[in-house]
This record gives sequence, C-alpha cells and structure tokens, in this order.
Amino acid sequence: MAGGAGTRFWPLSREAHPKPLLSVGGGRTLLGETMVRARKAATGDRVWLVCGASHAGKMKKASGLPARRVLVEPTMRNTAAAIALAAHRIVREDPDGVMAVLSADHRIPVADGAKFSRALARAAVAAHEADVLMTIGVRPTRPETGYGYLRLGKPAGGAHRGIHRVARFVEKPDRAKARRYLKSDAYLWNAGIFVWRAATLLEELEKWAPEIAGPLVPLGKASARNLPKAIEQAYRRTPAVPIDIAVMEQSRRVWCLPADFHWSDIGTWKSLAEETGVTQNVTRVIQGDAWVCDSQGNLVAAGDRPVVLLGVSNLVVVDAGDAILVADLDRSADVKDVVAMLRRKRRTDLL
Amino acid sequence: MAGGAGTRFWPLSREAHPKPLLSVGGGRTLLGETMVRARKAATGDRVWLVCGASHAGKMKKASGLPARRVLVEPTMRNTAAAIALAAHRIVREDPDGVMAVLSADHRIPVADGAKFSRALARAAVAAHEADVLMTIGVRPTRPETGYGYLRLGKPAGGAHRGIHRVARFVEKPDRAKARRYLKSDAYLWNAGIFVWRAATLLEELEKWAPEIAGPLVPLGKASARNLPKAIEQAYRRTPAVPIDIAVMEQSRRVWCLPADFHWSDIGTWKSLAEETGVTQNVTRVIQGDAWVCDSQGNLVAAGDRPVVLLGVSNLVVVDAGDAILVADLDRSADVKDVVAMLRRKRRTDLL
Repeated sequence: MAGGAGTRFWPLSREAHPKPLLSVGGGRTLLGETMVRARKAATGDRVWLVCGASHAGKMKKASGLPARRVLVEPTMRNTAAAIALAAHRIVREDPDGVMAVLSADHRIPVADGAKFSRALARAAVAAHEADVLMTIGVRPTRPETGYGYLRLGKPAGGAHRGIHRVARFVEKPDRAKARRYLKSDAYLWNAGIFVWRAATLLEELEKWAPEIAGPLVPLGKASARNLPKAIEQAYRRTPAVPIDIAVMEQSRRVWCLPADFHWSDIGTWKSLAEETGVTQNVTRVIQGDAWVCDSQGNLVAAGDRPVVLLGVSNLVVVDAGDAILVADLDRSADVKDVVAMLRRKRRTDLL
Repeated sequence: MAGGAGTRFWPLSREAHPKPLLSVGGGRTLLGETMVRARKAATGDRVWLVCGASHAGKMKKASGLPARRVLVEPTMRNTAAAIALAAHRIVREDPDGVMAVLSADHRIPVADGAKFSRALARAAVAAHEADVLMTIGVRPTRPETGYGYLRLGKPAGGAHRGIHRVARFVEKPDRAKARRYLKSDAYLWNAGIFVWRAATLLEELEKWAPEIAGPLVPLGKASARNLPKAIEQAYRRTPAVPIDIAVMEQSRRVWCLPADFHWSDIGTWKSLAEETGVTQNVTRVIQGDAWVCDSQGNLVAAGDRPVVLLGVSNLVVVDAGDAILVADLDRSADVKDVVAMLRRKRRTDLL
C-alpha cells in the first residue's frame, strides 16, 4: 500500500510526492525498502502495489513493478477498500492465496530484514493453517499516543508458539493510558502489518462491513483490461473506512504475532529524526549540503543550496526548493495544520 | 563611507553586496537612507561617496550620485585613508569646506531625521568657529560591548552650549565596564559620525599619523581624470588604520555633541532584529513571504520561496537564494565565523 496524502512531511512530501517516495538516510526510498522486504517474502513475481492515481507513474517507476501489478485508485478510499481491491485480484489468481499487507511508508531497519522475513513466514503459516487474520504487534518502547494498540488474549497454542489471540483493539490512547500500556506486557502497537488468506479477509469484510465489501465484488471478476473502469465504478460507491474499524476491531478471528524487529511508521519529522539517529547531542542531515555549527538535536533536509545552522537545537529545517520549513521538532505533528492553512489560502502550488 | 566587507550579515550581505545595500524594513537601502540624510545636510550637490572597487557600480547606482562624486578605493584601507581621500577632494574644491562623515551602514529612524539635521548643523558651526574635530556621541541604552565609548570632558562653553571637550576615547569595554559606563552620564557611544573642516582633519592626520597622511598628499592635486591612478598609487603605500586610532584618540582638538536622535550601527542580525521591532513576543519579516505559526522573537528574511516558521523562537532565518542561514539570534555575532569557515573551505561562490 502506497497511498496517503503525506501532509505530515510537508514541504518535502507533497500531494504529488508522498511519503513512500521519501528517502530516509540518503539511500532507497521508503517504497524501495518496502519492495525489498516484499520481494523476500513473496515467491516469484507476486508483489502488488496499490497507489493513488495522482502519483501512480512515480510509484510504478520507484517500485520497479510491471504495470499489471500496480492497482491504481482513482480516489482515496482508506485502507479497507485498498486491501479488498488487492485481495480480490489475488483470489482471482490463487483462490487459496495468502497475502501480506505492508505499508510503503513504514520503516524497518535493513539489519532486521531477516527477522521480518521470518515473522511474515510464521504469520503466513498460522494464517493458512488456522484460517485467521494475523496481525503483527510491536512491543511499545515509549508511551506513544499516535498509534493504535491491541491487547493480547490467550495463546493460540498448538504449533503456533508465541502467537496470541487478540482480546481487543484500542484506539489511540491518551498519555496516561499509553504509560500504562507501556508498563504492561499485554499491550502492543498495532503496526498495520497483516497476513491472511485473501479469501478469508474478503469473507470477514462481507460479514462486518458489507457496505464496503458489496460495491467491490466486481473487482474479483474484471479482466485486467476492464479493471480501471471497474475500480472507478466500485470506488464511487464504497465508503472510505480504515481496515482496523471495518474488520480488525470486530472480527473474532484475529491473532497476533509479536514482532522481534524494530518498526516505525515515521509519522512525523520528530519520529523520522529519531529513526535517523538524531539525539540531544547529534544533528542529522538526511539530504543535501549543510554546515552544522554548535547545533545539536536537529534534522536537516537541504535542497539545492547549503543550509547553515548556528547555535540552534531541536529544529527540523527543510528546504524543498519552493518552500522552506523551520519548526520545533516537538511541534512537528502540527505540520499538518500548516498544510491545512495552505489549503485554506488556496496555495495549491505548495500542496 | 560605504566600505566594509559585511560578513556579519551573511548570507544576505556578500562581498559583492555589502551591508549598505541591505534594505531594513522593506523600504530604502541603508545607503539610500544615508543619502537622504546627507542631501538634507549638504547644500547643492556636495555629497561624496567613498566605496570599494568590487561594488562601486552597485553603490553608484544606489546612491544616485554622478560619477565624479564617487571615490573608488581599489583596496580596503580602513577609515583613516577613506576619510582623508574625501577630505583632499573637498579641500580642492573649497579650502575652508566643512565635511560631515556619515557611514552608509548606520541606521537613524526617518522620524529622527530633523533632529539629526539640526545636530549636524550645530556640529558644523562649532567645527567651523572653534576649528575643532566634532564627533557625535550617543547616550548608551544598554551595556554594549561591541562599540567604542568616549568620556566627556569640560563643557566647550561660549555659544557651544551642550557641546563638551572629549576627555578620552575608550576602546570596546568588557561587560563590567560597559555596565559602569551605562550608569554614568560621562560616557557616550562613539558613533563614528564626525564633522570638521576638511583641512583641519588633514592637519591633524599629518600631525598624529604622518605615515598615513604622507602617501595621500597627491590626492589633493590629482585631476579628476588622473584620480583613479593616484588613489591606486597612494593606497599601495598607506597603511590601513581606523580614524579613531589614527587621529581621534590622539588629537587635543576633539569635541563632542551628544546626540538626541536614535542611532544604531546595526552590527549583527540581533541588533537588526531589535531595530526592526523584534521582541520576545514579536516576529518580523523584513523581506519576502513568510508564514509565522506560534513563533515569537524571530527575524525572517525570505527569498523567492516562502518560509514557514512553526513553534520556534529567537531565531534569525535568512534565505539568500544560494544559501540558507538558521541561527540563534544571540549567536548572530558568530556569523562572521561561518564566513571565515567558508573562506577556509574556498566556497568563494558563497562569499
């Protein structure tokens, strides 16, 4: 999945250049890193990409996938529709196929690649044998209020050692709750990484969210040639709902494999800073040319001209060529408000 | 005088675009504002400009002066030589002429223009009648360690009410001394604004600094046509010394008129911020397009692209088109160290 508007990384991410196309640390884009992980997990050539129409060309190119593996959404309909669209196409090729749902804007360190592959493989076995919806849970490392959580239930038992049933999903908690979850062993971050039989996901969607599932049914039958038109018609009628709300929070067949790899969804400049090694004492320059004088704890993304920092700390400084952001890193969640303001002021050139 | 390297306003001031060409507050350049003051003080067309060769064209244009009024220095030789050069040319036209020395990078609010004119006129009368070197002193408003001071001596008496002899000049003091000077009525900032008979200045220069005065003597005789060549030859032999050290600190003929106008030499981004009205609660945008979100106490000079501030304070943010500076305002005196580093790294494109 490479959708999303990417307003939180303005001015580097734009409507036409969303987060999956950002490079973290100078190397591959987040989409490129996700492709590497996907290709290790999927045999042969069975990787699919779901993305929005406005940047389909760039995404196609960055993914290196053949056109028939790229599913283009004419409008954003949140994750339930995007996942169901892919599930229908997978079932069409392989009625018993197991799919893993990966987001192209998450970050898992390259060093944890093998752990990630093993986790996906274990989840796939459980999903196939027990016919359940597997989700990967991540042990919290801080009292994060920006993620959803899940509460582990009883162990799945049998061959599925370490895997638990999910007792319930919890929406983004307040600070106090997040602190309690951090101390408990029972609460994990809902990382949005799912593994299931594609057919099972479609069954559960039909059961718990028929208003979403219904309009999408034709997508399992359309020929490759007719698919764009079929998606357009289906998307006109299907509501935009996250998969968590449509299915995960309601289904009784959800199991969880706790992850042993590092994971981040890099939701803000602040979390990107942490991911790239910014600390109280360290400034990181993730692109371009910067001179850092007596400045600690900053994240810099320079553009075509050098950026000089002098005696500053805890800032994110971004030169996107046509706009410059200077923000307190701890206020980086509010960047989306800046984008909302730009939209109100009709500065579409900067969106 | 429109010389100087202007390293303290990097990246907006450059070797080829020094401080007198900066605009403070969107209107005229500092040179342009100085020209307005000079034209009010000098009858007819008797304003001269001394500037460096590397930006003579821009200075000439910005001043609006005819070419014969622009004295071009082939190399920088500090203020004693620059002032003596002008004095020689003035004496050549008017042996009894009184000259006022104004720096093209000082700022005096437009509202104080009349007070400034009256002060120059009073100083000119005293300089002419008593044949003394007049300097304008500015009452300190803070314990500034970046300026030189002068200590007032006995009142000049006679018709020169309010004018004092100068007991002595004091070099830039340390913090403790600056605090004492602030409390005392006897100490004023040496604003570097001088009024004297040009011939008297040349006499005193000959008396106290013959090694500077000697090589410059031919400048009083050269025809307009031969002047550039004469300056080049003279400047090769004359040392670079400030007028304060060459003459003011030694002469026994120095008097001071305390100013009643606001004055600033705007030495750093910090002082420019104060001059333009930046306070703990107020951010100022002195050029270009900026959006200020929850940000106080900042100075912004945007370029061709908008600058967005979010949750930051006490910063100077400058986009000069080919370089971006983000600095703590209280560290702005160290900007010159950044320029020194650029010079060491041979980034002449950014100097």
